[in-house]
Amino acid sequence: MSFYDFTGSQDPQQEDEHYMRLALQEAEQAYTQDEIPIGAIVVSKGRIVGRGHNLTEQLNDVTAHAEMQAFTAAGQTIGGKYLKDCTLYVTVEPCVMCAGAAYWMQIGAIVYGASEPKRGYSSHNSNLLHPKTVIRKGVLAEQCAALMKRFFATKRS
Amino acid sequence: MSFYDFTGSQDPQQEDEHYMRLALQEAEQAYTQDEIPIGAIVVSKGRIVGRGHNLTEQLNDVTAHAEMQAFTAAGQTIGGKYLKDCTLYVTVEPCVMCAGAAYWMQIGAIVYGASEPKRGYSSHNSNLLHPKTVIRKGVLAEQCAALMKRFFATKRS
Repeated sequence: MSFYDFTGSQDPQQEDEHYMRLALQEAEQAYTQDEIPIGAIVVSKGRIVGRGHNLTEQLNDVTAHAEMQAFTAAGQTIGGKYLKDCTLYVTVEPCVMCAGAAYWMQIGAIVYGASEPKRGYSSHNSNLLHPKTVIRKGVLAEQCAALMKRFFATKRS
Repeated sequence: MSFYDFTGSQDPQQEDEHYMRLALQEAEQAYTQDEIPIGAIVVSKGRIVGRGHNLTEQLNDVTAHAEMQAFTAAGQTIGGKYLKDCTLYVTVEPCVMCAGAAYWMQIGAIVYGASEPKRGYSSHNSNLLHPKTVIRKGVLAEQCAALMKRFFATKRS
């Protein structure tokens, strides 16, 4: 079985963890580039159509979040403006901006790893997402959070 | 007096209207390109550091809002990541995504024209903006809204 032949017929939890591991690989790339280690993958019908990791330092742009990179890449790959049949896998809960972008993209589902109680979209008492977007959270949460903690520990030392 | 020599010492209302007219020029450019006519300008200490208009059709990217273009341009011009000393002038109330981007940018002020009761950030019962961001609204609101109405009227006919 290759990394790329998921067809949606697998065990859903196994599938979520599979793609989250790929998002974690993106996050690891950010880590090695001294970026806050958040990674994202967009999947459409078993095919990876977008990837991204946080590039805020490299691009000197605080809006260059992993999700924004992955959304734009997915739109280009699909050649359409909407991601209704897609799932975003992201290692950390999206912020308000990324939730707002997901709203416009009408993304089918968002699966995230670690929660972000301070800056996460769900800290607001209002549904910022598209009403049709399905949410699954806590997938490989410990690994996703551990990478963030490891990063910030190096910054404090 | 040129269009570019405001120093912040003018009458504040006059200054807001001046820059909103420039944002309206950006919106007119979007209109002529068959884009939803929203325009934005970022001003820092009397200097225009970013411009943008809606490019969602041209870029085939539903996140390519006027504000996002103007923010990225301003960051490049200033060479810094934050827009604390900047004011965003935008013809229509920003959406959740753009409010979230403004949060990360820590923008000093947002001045908008027409309200957007359905998709505007303020329709959510939660403060999505940075606590230090000042808001002024309704500047040239009629002109800003009229351009939007003119655009959507052509779409329905």
